[in-house]
Amino acid sequence: VNEADFIQALRGFSSLIGDDSAVVPTPGGGDLLFTTDFTIENVHFKRSAPARHVGYQAVARSLSDIAAMGGQPLYCLIAIALAPWTTARWLDGFYRGARRALGGCRLAGGDVSHARDFIANVTVVGSVGRGKALLRSGARPGDRIYVSGKLGGWHHKKKIVPRLDLGRKLVGRASACMDISDGLALDLFRLCAASGVAAQLDTVPLLPRATEKQALHDGEDYELLYTVPSGRRAPGFPIGRIIDGSPSITLRGERIRPGGYDHFQQLGRKARV
Amino acid sequence: VNEADFIQALRGFSSLIGDDSAVVPTPGGGDLLFTTDFTIENVHFKRSAPARHVGYQAVARSLSDIAAMGGQPLYCLIAIALAPWTTARWLDGFYRGARRALGGCRLAGGDVSHARDFIANVTVVGSVGRGKALLRSGARPGDRIYVSGKLGGWHHKKKIVPRLDLGRKLVGRASACMDISDGLALDLFRLCAASGVAAQLDTVPLLPRATEKQALHDGEDYELLYTVPSGRRAPGFPIGRIIDGSPSITLRGERIRPGGYDHFQQLGRKARV
Repeated sequence: VNEADFIQALRGFSSLIGDDSAVVPTPGGGDLLFTTDFTIENVHFKRSAPARHVGYQAVARSLSDIAAMGGQPLYCLIAIALAPWTTARWLDGFYRGARRALGGCRLAGGDVSHARDFIANVTVVGSVGRGKALLRSGARPGDRIYVSGKLGGWHHKKKIVPRLDLGRKLVGRASACMDISDGLALDLFRLCAASGVAAQLDTVPLLPRATEKQALHDGEDYELLYTVPSGRRAPGFPIGRIIDGSPSITLRGERIRPGGYDHFQQLGRKARV
Repeated sequence: VNEADFIQALRGFSSLIGDDSAVVPTPGGGDLLFTTDFTIENVHFKRSAPARHVGYQAVARSLSDIAAMGGQPLYCLIAIALAPWTTARWLDGFYRGARRALGGCRLAGGDVSHARDFIANVTVVGSVGRGKALLRSGARPGDRIYVSGKLGGWHHKKKIVPRLDLGRKLVGRASACMDISDGLALDLFRLCAASGVAAQLDTVPLLPRATEKQALHDGEDYELLYTVPSGRRAPGFPIGRIIDGSPSITLRGERIRPGGYDHFQQLGRKARV
């Protein structure tokens, strides 16, 4: 079993699964967005990381999903499982960081439990105009592919900047959008698979000291990846073009394997999944 | 630091914190409810437990919070962190159990990660009429106190039955309501503290082979605890009465310490929190 197969099996349970956030209609006329993300010690951060940074990233990770849908974040739930090493001072720092990331999004509840490692789970509820959410499935042959920023920064250190303003600007402009959480190659492959198209990349904008390999296959960039119909203008870095074909990616003509961060692969090394 | 102090500190960040679910208005006229709950290996279940039971309980725990608010569950997000021992077969059982608990509530998304222990986080979104949610803060002197069922079953084994129908029936009838997740004594104390009242208990209805001590101080009963103005009829077991006074509980005239399951206490034995 790999993560893609597993998510595919889950989709059999519900048509709402598959984008960065779930999209559900409200009686008031708009759509609501729901997203939930783990932040786990030794997976997403090391105990030595500043508490504020951990809290900030935990919230920013979910806000980035709302940005990818073109939405406005409204409410946030923070569930935490305290580890034996967690001090009141550390928790205070964690919540300071979380609040800084929240901006105008309101903390609306949570849960407190305990575990061997510190774990946070952040759920964000957002809103977007009815039928206006940016999905992964709208890319069409001829569309240009963009990223919102340079890629390949070393992922545990970099501060996530959720591209909320850009996401809202892309509503009605981009044909498809998602955030890059598991590496450009894997995430672009997911976008291609959702849209039933292939991608030709010409270039990958790199952060200082980053390699193309890092930009393609490392996780946690949290830039937006989006497609725009040709002739329409959009901000960001153009990196290639959508073409007809079964889901695949080439960079300057060379085929790129859609390898990125896969939680099932991480386990596969030591486990039976 | 104990859990109560911590939750109190969090309330300083947001007025939405303090009930079983957050309550937020929607443009359509109703209120939305949000709740999030962890299910953690070695805290909420043992690896030897049947996967279906673990999945069922994980979802039922959050549905019980929606029931306690008098709400209707609409959407569910399930985030899971796979442990090294997690097999595809076990996961399949987990999701079968989760779906059985969901009933008409739709699975709308989630997250997949990995950790040393298996962890699930379930978020449920529900709805309730504008201003109709059952809160903890509405109990008044003279109200009768009820529980929805017998208490004190051994918590890791018992199947949670979210009291959704009862919760909806209590809307407009109960003055306050919550679910019993951490033991009657601690949860009733929380209700008293939220309402600024005291409680006199006459009796505690017990499950077969349960002791009064278990019913008062063990967690995970997941029955509803609610108060009803005198003269109004309500289903359930009457167990006592709300009186004037600072938050406290007596049982047949004897003072009961509000001790129950406190995650900070669990840590306190081995940690610095």
